[in-house]
This record gives sequence, structure tokens and C-alpha cells, in this order.
Amino acid sequence: MTDSKDTIITEGFSCPLPIMDYDTIQLAHGAGGKLSGDLIEKVFMPCFGNETLEKLEDQATLSPMKGRLAFTTDSFVVHPIFFPGGNIGELAINGTVNDLCMSGAVPKYISVAFILEEGLPVADLHHIAVSMRRAADRAGVLIVTGDTKVVDRGSCDKLFINTSGIGEIPDHVHMGIKRIKPGDQIILSGHIADHGMAVMTTREGLSFQTQISSDTAALNHLVADMLKASPEIHAMRDPTRGGVATTLNEMARGAHLGIQIYQDRIRVRDDVRGACEILGIDPLYVANEGKLVAFVDKQVADKVLKAMRENELGRQAAIIGEVVAEHPGKVVMKTSLGVNRLIDMPIGQQLPRIC
Amino acid sequence: MTDSKDTIITEGFSCPLPIMDYDTIQLAHGAGGKLSGDLIEKVFMPCFGNETLEKLEDQATLSPMKGRLAFTTDSFVVHPIFFPGGNIGELAINGTVNDLCMSGAVPKYISVAFILEEGLPVADLHHIAVSMRRAADRAGVLIVTGDTKVVDRGSCDKLFINTSGIGEIPDHVHMGIKRIKPGDQIILSGHIADHGMAVMTTREGLSFQTQISSDTAALNHLVADMLKASPEIHAMRDPTRGGVATTLNEMARGAHLGIQIYQDRIRVRDDVRGACEILGIDPLYVANEGKLVAFVDKQVADKVLKAMRENELGRQAAIIGEVVAEHPGKVVMKTSLGVNRLIDMPIGQQLPRIC
Repeated sequence: MTDSKDTIITEGFSCPLPIMDYDTIQLAHGAGGKLSGDLIEKVFMPCFGNETLEKLEDQATLSPMKGRLAFTTDSFVVHPIFFPGGNIGELAINGTVNDLCMSGAVPKYISVAFILEEGLPVADLHHIAVSMRRAADRAGVLIVTGDTKVVDRGSCDKLFINTSGIGEIPDHVHMGIKRIKPGDQIILSGHIADHGMAVMTTREGLSFQTQISSDTAALNHLVADMLKASPEIHAMRDPTRGGVATTLNEMARGAHLGIQIYQDRIRVRDDVRGACEILGIDPLYVANEGKLVAFVDKQVADKVLKAMRENELGRQAAIIGEVVAEHPGKVVMKTSLGVNRLIDMPIGQQLPRIC
Repeated sequence: MTDSKDTIITEGFSCPLPIMDYDTIQLAHGAGGKLSGDLIEKVFMPCFGNETLEKLEDQATLSPMKGRLAFTTDSFVVHPIFFPGGNIGELAINGTVNDLCMSGAVPKYISVAFILEEGLPVADLHHIAVSMRRAADRAGVLIVTGDTKVVDRGSCDKLFINTSGIGEIPDHVHMGIKRIKPGDQIILSGHIADHGMAVMTTREGLSFQTQISSDTAALNHLVADMLKASPEIHAMRDPTRGGVATTLNEMARGAHLGIQIYQDRIRVRDDVRGACEILGIDPLYVANEGKLVAFVDKQVADKVLKAMRENELGRQAAIIGEVVAEHPGKVVMKTSLGVNRLIDMPIGQQLPRIC
């Protein structure tokens, strides 16, 4: 996960920077001709290559899958494209894996579509592609189909990535907002606001004693551990855009139930809290990219929590509150001072373009 | 299919322009808060709404599918976003449906991801969403999951759309480049170069006696008719970016076989030919968005051709050449003058950003 641009990559899959006719992306790299072929052959195939992708058809053919399918899509437009703890490509793979596994699905296949700005250094694209492959390997998913478009200089901001994904939902898993019920315990998997503040402080050129790093990570192995502990997990979400506050509001509204949380159970790293205070931002509304919120049947909450804490990505997991029959559609937080405060849905963003 | 912005829409699905707090897209429409919810509730749900999408989870849950799956992705960055014969949204749905059915798959589910530029008129987005729904209805596919990002003014060109899709491949259908063999007849489904020239002439502000319209269309029903006539269709492609010439080159290389075509069998409308001549462009290299090239076993070619001609989208279908054992990897065209000319892969684009 230490994949910021200045870091030498030593772990996992590696792939040398290819020798190409151009050092930067040309419009012709997206036109379907020889230069498009060059980009596919020298950058994408060595990075992403697998049996399915190598057929180079306009679509991937996948073996039949037994269970229900989960299908999701997400575009990534974060700037800067490299930030402490990761880059836009790694974020895209992890984000799509996470959207799939939040339904309890086992993520299987990912599509990758690039929109590249003319003039983007090929070395940057290559670096991003290598970290996408590495993220896919860590999550155990295959990149099976893709697309590349190039737009004129000034028509996009360096590069945008869309990743869509397919997963398989095991027969015994049934999650969804509608399954949430009063008494459900709300578990948060760790510290909040790391990703948003890593991007924000980089963008604003702020530096602190310790560097704030994005928490970008694939949560599917953590989810598998949780479901092994008990299938009585009623719903899950990854609190990305809008943070934990927005996610909880969506869940309260969708379930027509109330949510009660406790401020002193929600962990925020000291440096992240400091950055939030300087910038006047509430960490509850800041994006996370490697955290989940789970609504778990009261009977099994401790068991699920224990399983989470045995996984590296859930070491700091905690029960932060519960679902209540009162104040349906609303999220209420008992503050450190002991008073209840309404946690509303934000109007817009505190942080634009952080995923 | 007459869905350019100035045309009053009368056929199919309709949906009134919603009353919203803002006439143009704001950054907050992509931030996951109240304004994001507003956009989903007032624009996307009325346009795209169906039982699966309405669950508003971060992923769609789909019923199990029996056969092999086809999975594809495509980003659309065409400018202008409205052009004679269609718009970027309709193009996106049709393009993804076509990528799926070129494998013989029955297209089923589509994801839609928008990247919107701050300041885009909501009316334009609504118009595009309505035509996407209509295109999906015509093709018989469901839009089941989506994503919206908003970027600062100047960070993208009005809007970009990614559509990914899932289809089901019937057990008796087995298509792929590797199945192509010498003697296979090459069928082209109609006139070429309409889409590319419609976009190009609009962009350049050229006008002709008759308006050149994009051929954007979903080909899945045509493919179904062809497969009903015979499953002995070895491979299919839709000649989009790079046109028929690029597609045939890819097929010749992938199959390690030669391709011989005949210029006088390839149809180009008079107005399109005229525009190509004025702009110095070879129609063989111009994008199509509602045409297919099929490699069909010699024994059944006439039967397949007959079935195609009974479908509106294949009325002008013709056998334009055949696969040969000679000159593997190369495409040779007998010109109207009776001489053979090598049809090479283009280096880059004649027409940037036309799909």
C-alpha cells in the first residue's frame, strides 16, 4: 500500500517500463490503429495480461457462475493522481472490489476503462497500471476486459479511470438495507478520514510531522472472515464519498429506522484529527477507502467483532452504536460531552474529487 | 433514432424535465450528499428506474445466469455530445449492447457511469438520460447500477459516459477469431462511414444537401436473427473506431489468415462519399456505430445473408469478400479498377473522438 509515486516498488508483481516510440500519450494511442495496438501490447498486456484478456476480443467470455451476481461500476477522477498511500489506479481496483463485497459477494472480474489526456507521461500510466495489477492480485480478482480513450489536451484532467466489476454472492448470504432491524449493532472497521485527509493535505500542500496516508485497501478478505464468523450480518457499506455520516444517513433512511452512535467509540488518528481541525472539517464526513460499516445481529456482534480484529484491516474495529426504533431516518450521536447531536446528511461536499 | 437535440421526441419512453434547485450541474451533485440524492431521485430514477436499480445499493444483485457470461466496458468521449442521428448517451448504450452481442451473447444488464463537468445544463443531462433509457428499451437491456462524478469546470469536456455490460452466451454459440477459416465469407451489414462523417461534418460545420446522420443502433436483434439462420457464424465485430479497414486487419492478424475484399461490394452513401472526398478521408477507416462484419461458414453464408436482409438493420447487407490462406495477417482489396491494393492498419486516427 506504500505506492506513492516517489516510492520504489519492491513487493509483488513487477514489470519494467516499456520502450515506446513516444514518451507521452498521443491522440493516436486511443484511435484504434497501430499506436493503440502498441499501448495495449507494451503497457496493458504485460501489466494486466491473463488468458481471458489476451483473447483481445471486444468482450470477455467468462465461465458460468452458479450464484446470484453482484455488478457494480465506479469512475475515479481524484486529483492529484498520486497521493501518499496510493494512486488513482489502486484506488479504482480497491473501490470496485469493495463495492462488490459490501453485498457479501466474492469479487471475481474487473473491467478497466481509461480516459487519458493527450500529453500524459507514459511512465505515469505504466506506474498506475502496475499498481492496479498488484491491487487486483492482492484482492484475488482478474482484469478481464478494458477500453482506452484519449482526449485532447485540456479535455480531461490527466486521466480518469472507470472500473466495473462482477462478483458471485454465496447462496447463504443475504444482505441489504431492508434486513436492518432495531437492536442491530453497528461495527466500524477502523480509524476514519485517512483517505480524504491524505488527498486534501497533499492538494493543499500542507505538511505535518507525520505524513497522512490513504487507507485504500480491498476489504473482501475481511468480509470473508466476518461472514465465516456469522452469516447474520444484515448489511454493509464502505463509507467513501461523504464519509461515515453520509453512509449512516443513507442506511437510516433506507431502513426507516433510527441510528444512535457514540462519539468516543469512533477512532480518528491524532494527525488526521489535527489536519481536520486546521482545515475546519468534520472527520465524520471525510472519505475512507479501506473501511466498512456493518450492521450485525446483536446475538453475533461480539463474534463478528472478534473475527474482524484478527484481520489486519479490522484490527481497530469497534462497535460504534446501534439501530433504534426511535427517530426513524435520523442519525444521532452522543458526543464526548454526553449530549445528543443530530448528524445530518451534508448538502454537498467538504472535499471535492477525492475518489 | 432521430434524437438530435433539436428534434422533438415522440416515440417510446418519455419523462418530463424535472424541477430542480439548480439549472446546471454543481460540484455538490457528485459529492454523495443531498444534492447527489436530488440528482438521482429527480433525473436518474425517473429515467432509468427499475426494481434492481431502485434498491440503491452500491451494487446490483442479479439473478443467477445459466450460460457463459460476456462482460465488456467502453467509455464515450465524443464531441459534440449531440449530433445528427443521436447523442453520446444513446451511443453508449448501443455501443455496449453491440460489444456484447458480437460474441453471440444476449445482452442483459448495463451499468452507467457519468463524469459531468460543473456547469453542464441539467436539461442536457436529462435529455441524454431519456435517450439512454429509450435505447435500452429498444435493445431489451436493463440499466441496473450507476455512478456519478462531477469535476471542476474545465476538467472534462461537458460529460463522459462509461457503460459496462453483461450478456449471456447461449450454449450452442461459439464465436471467436480462432474459429475463422479459409473460405469463410465476409458479410458487411450495410453502408459504411455514416457515424464518423456525421460527427466530423457537425464538428467542422460543414453542410450538405442532405444531412448525414449517425447509424447508431443496437445490433442484438439482427445478431439473433443471424444465429437463428445458422450457428455457423465463426466471428463477428462491429467496425467502430478505425472503421472496417482496422477491424479486418485485426481479424486477419488474430486469425493468421489473409482477407480479400472487393471495393465495388462495399456500400457508401453518396452524401457520405462526397463528404469523405471533400475532407480527404477514406471511408474504409471511418467509424460505424450500427454495422457489423461477420465471418460466416461458406455453406451457410447465403442463408445468413438472407436472414440479415429481412431485418431493417441488415437490409443492405452484402458479402464483401472472403478469408484466404494466402498473405496471412494482411487485408487486400480488389479496387473498382481491378487492381489489388493493400489495406493497412492506420497509424493513428483520421477522426479523433467519434465514439
